[in-house]
Amino acid sequence: MALVRLATARTHYGSSFLCLRSESLPRCWSQIRAFSAAMSPPSSAVVYEHHGPPESVTRVVELPPVEVKENDVCVKMLAAPINPSDINRIEGVYPVRPHVPAVGGYEGVGEVHSLGSAVKGLSPGDWVIPSPPSSGTWQTYVVKEQSVWHKINKDVPMEYAATVTINPLTALRMLEDFGNLNPGDAIVQNGATSIVGQCIIQLARIRGIHSINIIRDRVGSDEVKEKLKGLGADEVFTESQLEVKNVKGLLANLPEPALGFNCVGGNSATLVLKFLRQGGTMVTYGGMSKKPITVSTSSFIFKDLSLRGFWLQKWMSSDKAKESRKMIDYLLGLTQEGKIKYEMELVPFSNFHAALDKALGKFGSQPKQVIKF
Amino acid sequence: MALVRLATARTHYGSSFLCLRSESLPRCWSQIRAFSAAMSPPSSAVVYEHHGPPESVTRVVELPPVEVKENDVCVKMLAAPINPSDINRIEGVYPVRPHVPAVGGYEGVGEVHSLGSAVKGLSPGDWVIPSPPSSGTWQTYVVKEQSVWHKINKDVPMEYAATVTINPLTALRMLEDFGNLNPGDAIVQNGATSIVGQCIIQLARIRGIHSINIIRDRVGSDEVKEKLKGLGADEVFTESQLEVKNVKGLLANLPEPALGFNCVGGNSATLVLKFLRQGGTMVTYGGMSKKPITVSTSSFIFKDLSLRGFWLQKWMSSDKAKESRKMIDYLLGLTQEGKIKYEMELVPFSNFHAALDKALGKFGSQPKQVIKF
Repeated sequence: MALVRLATARTHYGSSFLCLRSESLPRCWSQIRAFSAAMSPPSSAVVYEHHGPPESVTRVVELPPVEVKENDVCVKMLAAPINPSDINRIEGVYPVRPHVPAVGGYEGVGEVHSLGSAVKGLSPGDWVIPSPPSSGTWQTYVVKEQSVWHKINKDVPMEYAATVTINPLTALRMLEDFGNLNPGDAIVQNGATSIVGQCIIQLARIRGIHSINIIRDRVGSDEVKEKLKGLGADEVFTESQLEVKNVKGLLANLPEPALGFNCVGGNSATLVLKFLRQGGTMVTYGGMSKKPITVSTSSFIFKDLSLRGFWLQKWMSSDKAKESRKMIDYLLGLTQEGKIKYEMELVPFSNFHAALDKALGKFGSQPKQVIKF
Repeated sequence: MALVRLATARTHYGSSFLCLRSESLPRCWSQIRAFSAAMSPPSSAVVYEHHGPPESVTRVVELPPVEVKENDVCVKMLAAPINPSDINRIEGVYPVRPHVPAVGGYEGVGEVHSLGSAVKGLSPGDWVIPSPPSSGTWQTYVVKEQSVWHKINKDVPMEYAATVTINPLTALRMLEDFGNLNPGDAIVQNGATSIVGQCIIQLARIRGIHSINIIRDRVGSDEVKEKLKGLGADEVFTESQLEVKNVKGLLANLPEPALGFNCVGGNSATLVLKFLRQGGTMVTYGGMSKKPITVSTSSFIFKDLSLRGFWLQKWMSSDKAKESRKMIDYLLGLTQEGKIKYEMELVPFSNFHAALDKALGKFGSQPKQVIKF
């Protein structure tokens, strides 16, 4: 029964119905084969049948071929990251998530393997990414409609192509969408070592915008500071360095920031608020500490602060998202020129569960885990 | 020495220099008299020489006459309220406050007593209010430039004229300035028994907007509910009634509110947030509980809530404030028609300190204290 339910998971990826290729169902499988003009190869996929701790509920399963319909593209995946939101979807705590059973993953890059008869503008071997991102990228072959896929330049390092649609785009949108920042202005952020954080530093620098960065106290924080400064950070403070009466006194010649980004919550969010200038805005896009944000009444009334949130998935459903492929190309261009970089670890698909453990934080701070198929 | 410093307090009210009418300074006083074409009467004033607990640092003092210059108007005050912000100014915790020594009070109504030679459009006996509000209304005679004063209709009850420029105007601006509310929409607020809260209920009703109101648990809460419903409140809940999993389940046919108002903080602010619909805004304009506002990360990211603040004194310095006298006239018209009402207690000036004790909350919940001169 479980196997049959699993099989239906692939119906989300282009095929209206399929039976599982399984020793128990040989007749069904061969019937589909007979009716289909073109089929995908079988796909090795990270599947979860119910929500729970990702290390327990996920397993790698061989899914049978699916039909490649006339408007479909069958893509051989090259690489896909493990993002915190992927983990939350599996845990069942993300507000929007695929029905279970489901294949994990939400972004990635692949190579066109085969095309439906009506598909134009793509050829086998082209590199494509799902844009906007969509679920089920943790498998070797993905079949989705042509409209899902965005062809990209093959000169981009695979791991950047696999990770551009969520974190770098979040950084870009947050810098663009909350008030007008001009060259010479400043922003402040916590969680500065996250990929979004590193992209904010670099995208701000390209725009002539100063960045004030807050990191956790940790062993090796001096090295982290140097690394972030190497990316263009103007100031990097550990949280404990900011246990002073007037944090703005630490800013020397930098202007007070009008915009702040918070992906941590708790005290770290309070520190972002302290740096903000009169009338400033703090945008929350994550809550790594799992602690809420606490704000004084006077911050709202007398300091006139605004607190907002940003969620890429919601932004993707807006009108603006139509331009998102242009933004993706812009960001990929920057990675190609070396103007945006961040640390990643490419992990063979066969080591998926080791990568998952790292992504779950079981071994402390680790580079972004990117599965290489 | 203290008396001389006190005397300078009146220099804020139209006179460039004056000496104190005092047994110790008879020569000085008569000199000014000789040089002045027109002088105000002496003024009984609530004065504080330094910041501290209002009941300790304020006293009623007789201030000497001041010169009524050519553009000045001398106004015999009729009534002035004791607002929480007046108390905060005396305590020294308000971010903008007059230099000490100072006369208390920030709004009120008075009758034109005498005019400078260049003043046009006003006659003795006219009713005027300082608009925008300005400091020093707790005294029997106020001398300020003509531009400070706004002539109003004398048909309005004195206590409403004395209190229109702060609380009712705050309610009006908050309903107008944060998103477009349309008839049939709903708002939610805590502190619904405050004057701003009562004005919000009534102004919302005039616009066909539903109001969901949160009040403290208290003896007699059923009566309070009936009273607020009599003003037009659609729903009134005590905080303890909202200790349910899904507060929105209590709303029956009302739409989820897009806008919330918070003047309490703490758990009461959290309750406002719970009622708000996806993408809603909470505006903080007070913090009666003296507790901060705590917000979950997901409220910002997934529920897309915005948190803002409103401060009338800042709004008054904006371009929009130019229209504020029209708004005042509109609001006074509504009070005259009985469409805006709220409870007040007129207290003779001779009982100022009893009224102050009530305003300080020493005797529990009390109607707004308005001094009658």
